[in-house]
Parts: sequence; structure tokens; C-alpha cells
Amino acid sequence: MIKVTVWNENRHEQKNPKVSEVYPEGIHGAIAQFLGEEGFQVRTATLDEVEHGLSNEVLDNTDVLLWWGHIAHEEVSDEIVNRVKDRVLDGMGLIVLHSAHFSKIFKTLMGTTCDLKWREADEKERIWVLEPSHPIAEGIGEYIELEKEEMYGEHFDIPAPDELVFSSWFEGGEVFRSGCTYRRGNGKIFYFRPGHETYPTYYHKDIQLVIKNAVKWAKPVDRKRPVYGNAKPLETISAK
Amino acid sequence: MIKVTVWNENRHEQKNPKVSEVYPEGIHGAIAQFLGEEGFQVRTATLDEVEHGLSNEVLDNTDVLLWWGHIAHEEVSDEIVNRVKDRVLDGMGLIVLHSAHFSKIFKTLMGTTCDLKWREADEKERIWVLEPSHPIAEGIGEYIELEKEEMYGEHFDIPAPDELVFSSWFEGGEVFRSGCTYRRGNGKIFYFRPGHETYPTYYHKDIQLVIKNAVKWAKPVDRKRPVYGNAKPLETISAK
Amino acid sequence: MIKVTVWNENRHEQKNPKVSEVYPEGIHGAIAQFLGEEGFQVRTATLDEVEHGLSNEVLDNTDVLLWWGHIAHEEVSDEIVNRVKDRVLDGMGLIVLHSAHFSKIFKTLMGTTCDLKWREADEKERIWVLEPSHPIAEGIGEYIELEKEEMYGEHFDIPAPDELVFSSWFEGGEVFRSGCTYRRGNGKIFYFRPGHETYPTYYHKDIQLVIKNAVKWAKPVDRKRPVYGNAKPLETISAK
Amino acid sequence: MIKVTVWNENRHEQKNPKVSEVYPEGIHGAIAQFLGEEGFQVRTATLDEVEHGLSNEVLDNTDVLLWWGHIAHEEVSDEIVNRVKDRVLDGMGLIVLHSAHFSKIFKTLMGTTCDLKWREADEKERIWVLEPSHPIAEGIGEYIELEKEEMYGEHFDIPAPDELVFSSWFEGGEVFRSGCTYRRGNGKIFYFRPGHETYPTYYHKDIQLVIKNAVKWAKPVDRKRPVYGNAKPLETISAK
Repeated sequence: MIKVTVWNENRHEQKNPKVSEVYPEGIHGAIAQFLGEEGFQVRTATLDEVEHGLSNEVLDNTDVLLWWGHIAHEEVSDEIVNRVKDRVLDGMGLIVLHSAHFSKIFKTLMGTTCDLKWREADEKERIWVLEPSHPIAEGIGEYIELEKEEMYGEHFDIPAPDELVFSSWFEGGEVFRSGCTYRRGNGKIFYFRPGHETYPTYYHKDIQLVIKNAVKWAKPVDRKRPVYGNAKPLETISAK
Repeated sequence: MIKVTVWNENRHEQKNPKVSEVYPEGIHGAIAQFLGEEGFQVRTATLDEVEHGLSNEVLDNTDVLLWWGHIAHEEVSDEIVNRVKDRVLDGMGLIVLHSAHFSKIFKTLMGTTCDLKWREADEKERIWVLEPSHPIAEGIGEYIELEKEEMYGEHFDIPAPDELVFSSWFEGGEVFRSGCTYRRGNGKIFYFRPGHETYPTYYHKDIQLVIKNAVKWAKPVDRKRPVYGNAKPLETISAK
Repeated sequence: MIKVTVWNENRHEQKNPKVSEVYPEGIHGAIAQFLGEEGFQVRTATLDEVEHGLSNEVLDNTDVLLWWGHIAHEEVSDEIVNRVKDRVLDGMGLIVLHSAHFSKIFKTLMGTTCDLKWREADEKERIWVLEPSHPIAEGIGEYIELEKEEMYGEHFDIPAPDELVFSSWFEGGEVFRSGCTYRRGNGKIFYFRPGHETYPTYYHKDIQLVIKNAVKWAKPVDRKRPVYGNAKPLETISAK
Repeated sequence: MIKVTVWNENRHEQKNPKVSEVYPEGIHGAIAQFLGEEGFQVRTATLDEVEHGLSNEVLDNTDVLLWWGHIAHEEVSDEIVNRVKDRVLDGMGLIVLHSAHFSKIFKTLMGTTCDLKWREADEKERIWVLEPSHPIAEGIGEYIELEKEEMYGEHFDIPAPDELVFSSWFEGGEVFRSGCTYRRGNGKIFYFRPGHETYPTYYHKDIQLVIKNAVKWAKPVDRKRPVYGNAKPLETISAK
């Protein structure tokens, strides 16, 4: 059984009634709900908990970590960011959602600014499948349509993804690489664009399906980290 | 249950006692054996059967097709090659083994010559894992060592693989991209280098594990082919 | 000086007055014009010439070949397609324009159907730059806007490009990978989407600039093809 | 004229007579020498200079920066690392040499540990060309042979390179991805493996040629950074 931890900054929910109305159990609660129904073993963690809820014990019991943050990226301690980064390189899957493009953990793993264009204008997004053979797109039609979402537009300052699974069309005229996979160390990372806090995006069945698929794709393989450092020769080196 | 068809040209086995001694049930038989033990539903097909054993009915019941060929690539009919290619683009997984780098089906899917350097000299091969997070490498240590194999050396005239999972070292001084994934249409392809007919390579536990992993990785996703051709607008196009 | 050959099927120009009005010297003539002004040594070739204008002598004097075709792909002889393919693998650059996505030469080099969605509806296209560091995008702003173009929409059945330089937004609701690079053998390939025959797209300064940049990018490197086939060991192979 | 700055930690040269014997003008001096002969405008900078020799004025006059470091990575100030990173994302080319795989600048741009296996055993390295169409490999034969070099072996903990140009064979039994390109922001990065301080590697004509080619490849394109942040719609967004 895949062990999933859903991390959420959980601040909009405290401050903005519009958000708590859409997500009365928090964004983490909504995500945990549908992941639990899929049969994953799910827990949640939030910024204001001790160690942001990401103790070593919790991470020892996490196969895949989901990350949602927006207004409080800077409040996440560097120590926890480094801890999570080490876990990803050790094999833990990481699913980075929406505004977490600007999270410390995503930026440090990508090495770029992860900046982008954005706009809140109640506009339509259509998320097209570019890689029909990819398990993350399994069960999704040709596209997912969201009546109202925040716009994220190119240029998205990321490394070219290892696999570009989805690309978004926005009513206002932009495109965006909205489903991106990355392999880093022993771990797998998936960035998925949609999920602005004032829209019911995480109740959308296809959005839920993509995230469920991504959890399965991102689960760790069974292996140790490679051995690094000084190495004895495996073959005889000739005298010269 | 994943349905697997192991295709083998099955000619060396008829002609060369050395080969039939190593593989008394044929290379296809040896591969079918360990795949069956893994719980896949396995059948075999060979060149000299009607339609090379790859009737539409067989392919209707194939999730993943393995392909081994060497001295009789040209005897595979273009009709069957096109049939298999369509199936791959429709989603069927394809695992291309060793000398099948020069098979019609691999060359037509790659678009390049798929040529390489080669040598039969009983030399050592060491297959290093480059992508430790990849499910095809799950359970494999840092490398697989084969005491004696045929050498394949760069330049290997293929498109840069979508993922380069393994790279080989050869005693005689060459390197080779020996585990390559490709996505094509709705299908997934894995090329895996080892498996010369005179060596017991397919009895090696790690080689078997890679192939088992590859079958799981290559299994089709549940989706139709995308809709192509003339398309009505999804949004209103303004008069100008 | 880079030697460029602009190949055009040149059939719409003969049949459709609307096209000959937009391109009185043919699409090839319009492209040759702005490439010549850039200082390239340019010639043109068309379908109805002997050997489609692509004799060995012409190809001996071609560093980069541009290809535009649409209604007569099937009339291009397989012999010439194979000849051009060999040249690409030998190092000749190939720039595939618009409806040449369905040309024999592109399909055989890609190994997929190269199919897509399309629509002629006088709609707006906006071509976004995804790789700002790429020389093919040099001098281009954040996007190129075309007031009226044919729509091409995903899914585009191609191998994932080695580099995805441009992505298009269409008024009618689709996106498209509109600038794709591929390395094949010793050669480089660039697919560029815009250029429907009834629009003055090839007079657009930014479209011209992309094509000029692509010619420079695609020019051959100075090297022979790798040596393939049986190879003597470079190191001593131990007796066992 | 391309403006190149060769940065070297320049510490081995001060401490180890063996190194100063091989590189009496320092590794930076040897590299600057052959780059200057190519017609680039070259300067050098070293760790112990003010601001490590990398003032804003110097970087304003740098198109491509080369980086060699080994025993003093930690002495490079974070401020300068961040400054260089910003420049790379702004478009400055970066060529990372040998033991600079562990430099702060490379690690922060890659997002991984950049760890590897290593061994000093006077062993042979053979660097094979995997991408014959790549301008960085122009003029190089099928491989470069170095009689004695330090070994670097897989697993190399880097993101899968955008292009894998070279792969190394080592006498002791390892392989290594030794020529890797990356696009990051507006900038281009090339990692090139050889160059241990006690060997005359940077006097080898082919090694010099690869570095010259890489400088040309990595030179900035002429463009501003993309505009990020809040963006007005380019199209009318319908009321709903």
C-alpha cells in the first residue's frame, strides 16, 4: 500500500472565507479524501505543525509527498526543505501542485527561478494530453476542461521536463507546460499546474485521476542509493 | 494479467547446435519460461509460423510483444511489420532484444539505421544503471556483469532515447547505450542490448528481472488513440 | 556560405489563384527570396522537375534542405525520399514546414504517423517561445502573433522532440508543439508549424527570422559518418 | 568576438609541484592560452582575487564562463555563486570542467548532489561521441583517448542531460556521462569531464577542440529575459 503525505501551507484557508468555503477541510483535506478513497494510506501535514508536520518519522512513512503552498513559501524552514530534498534524492516521490512552483523545495530541485506569468481572471483552461502513452494520463480523454482557473503562462522558467505530459491552453491567450515529470537521484517528481485556492479544481474527477495516477507513477523503486566516492577498480589496470 | 507474446526468429536454434544446446526450447522458450513464472500470460510466436505467428487474433491478445531476430530480418513480411507498428502506435508495448536492433520493426519505428559496432570475442560486459529511479532498473544493483557477451559499441545510430536507463562497458574498449526507452504514439518501446544466441544470457537472474520490469513498464495504458483530422473549434472564433 | 535548397511541391500555386496571388513566385520563391537576402546560397527545387529537382548533384551542393508539401505527398517517389533520408543521416540539415508534417520524408524519419488535428477558419495563432536560450529563437520576442492561420492541434503524433522551442496557442481552443528539433544520425531536423498556402505567413519578419535561424542551426557539422560494423578490440581481451 | 572568462580555484598549483610543473601558468593559464589562439577575447579569474575575480564588471564582459575547482569549493562565497547563477539564467554560457562537478555553482544549477565514483590510478579513458551531429563534437573522431586520467564513474547524480554528447570508457571497468548539455533560463551549460590537475589533459588537441566548440555553442543568444509576473490578457475573456 502506497503511503502518501499531503502537505499544505494551509494559510488561505484560515484567512479567506472564500477558500474555506470551497475547501472546508483545507486543500490538504480535499486531496487526502480522494487519495484515501483510492486505497492509499494517506496522512496530512501543514506548515504550522511542529517541523511543519514533516518529522523524520513522518517521512520514514511517506512514499509520495504532495506539496501545496503559495503565500508562505518563505516560512518553510531551510532545514525541512533540505530534509525533504534528501528524501526525494533517496527515492521519495514528490508531486508539486500549482503555486508550489515557487516553493523552496521545487526551486532547489529545479535549479531555476521557476517563475512564470499569472493572472486571476476567472478564465477557462484546457489541459491537453501530449503523451498518450504515459501512465499519468491514463483514463484522461484528449483534454481536461476547467471553466475557471488562474492563468499560468509561458515562459515557465524550468529545466525542460524529462517528459511533458500536459500542456494548457488559456482563454486569455497563453499556453503553459502544465504536467512535467523529472527524475532526480532515486526520486521522481511531477509538477501539475491546476489548483488555485478559490476554485473547486481538486473536486474535478479528472484532476483527481491525474493526481492518483501521479502518486502511482512517483512511488519509490526498491533500491538503495548508488555508492559514491572513491572506488576500487573492477578490472586490472595495466602498468604503463 | 498482462498478456505477453515472445516473438523469435528461431533460426539459429535450427542451424547451430551450440545455440540449441544453450536454448533447447529456443530463445523464445527460455524467455517465455521466466515470464510465465512471473505470472504473466505468455505465448510465443516464430518466423516460420503462418503470419509469423502474429495474426490479428494473437495481437488482439497481446499487451506487450518481445522481439528477438538476427539472421532473417529480411524474411519478416512488410505486412506484418506494418501490422505490428500499428499495434505499437495503438498502445501495445514492444521490447526489442539484442540483435533485433536491426529488425524492420525497430528501424521503422526509430527512423534511423540503428547500426552499431559489434564483435564476437567472448568478452566481459558490465551494464551500469544510469537512472536509479526507473522502474525498469528496480531491484538491480549498480551494474549487471556478464562474463561473456557479444560486444555492441557506439556509435549506435538511434534517436536519443527518451530515457537512457543502462549503459554498457565492454572489455575491448567500447561503451553502448544498452537500455533505451521510447514513447511512440500510444505505445512504449524498450530496447535492451544483451542476449547473443550462443551465451546463456537469458538465464541470468538480473537480465530476467530487467525484462520482467520492462514488461510491466511497457504495458498499455487504458485509452483510445487521439482523434486526428478535421476538428471543429472548441471556442468561438471572432469575425475579422 | 551555407548552401540551401528550398523544395516545394508547387501545386497549389498552379491550381488556386488565391495562392498564386499571395505567392506569385511560389512558396519556394518567397522563402528563397528572404534566405538569399540573408546571404545564404539558395536554390529551389519542385516536384515536377526531373528527380523532383533533387538530383545527387543538387544534394551534393545542399547543406540544408527546406521542405514544403501538402496535396501531393504521395507523388514524391520513394527513391528520392530514401535519397534525402540518407543525406539527412549523413549530416544535411532538414527543415520541415507546415503541412510537410505529412510528407514521406518526415514520417519515415520520425517513425510515427505525424498526424494531428487541423482546421481552416481564419483564426489567430500565437507562437510562444519555450526555450529562450535556443539559437532558433534568437531575436524573437516572447511570442509571434499571426492574425490568420490554419489551426494544427494536439495530439501531434511525433516522438517527443529533442528540444521543444515553440508552442502555439489557437483561438479555437487548441495548443500545438510548433517548433521541434530532432537529431538523427549526423543530421539535424527542425519542424516549424506555420505556413498555410493561402496566408502571407512567409512574409512575416519573425517567421522569416525563425527560418533563417533554423538554417544556421541545422547546417552540417564537419565530420564523416561513424564507422559501423565489425570492430577489432581497442584493448586486450583476457583469455578465460 | 566572444568574451570568455576562465575561472580557476588555482590552489593545487600553489601547493603541489607536480601540478605547477604540468601547468606552470595554472590550469586557467593553459586554457586561456588555447582559447586566445582561437580568437576569443579571454581573461582569467581566480579564487583568491577580490570577489574571486568575478566582479559585476567582469561578468558584464563575459559571454561564456569556464569553471575549474576542486579542493576549495566551500571557499567560494554564496554571494558570488548567486551572482554567477543569475548571470547564467540571464544568458551567460557556463562550461563546467572536471572536478567542478562538485562546485557550488553546478550543484545549485542542477539541484542534485552531482556526486560520482572516482579513482586516481593512472588509467586510460576513452571518450566516445554519442551525438555526431552536435557542434560540440565537430572535428572530433569517433573517440578521444587519454592515456592517463582520473576515473569518474556512474552513477553520476545529475539530471538527465538535455543532450548527452560524450560517454567515457575507463580501463578499470566504469562508464561515465562525460559531455552533458543543459539549458537553464536564457543560458546554456556544458559539463565536460576530463581535466585532472596532475595530467596534461588541457594540452590535448581534441580536448582543446571540444572546449573551443563548447564556447561557441554556449555563447548567449541576443534576447532579454522573458517577462514574468502578473500579465494582462491578450484576448478577451468572456463573462460567465
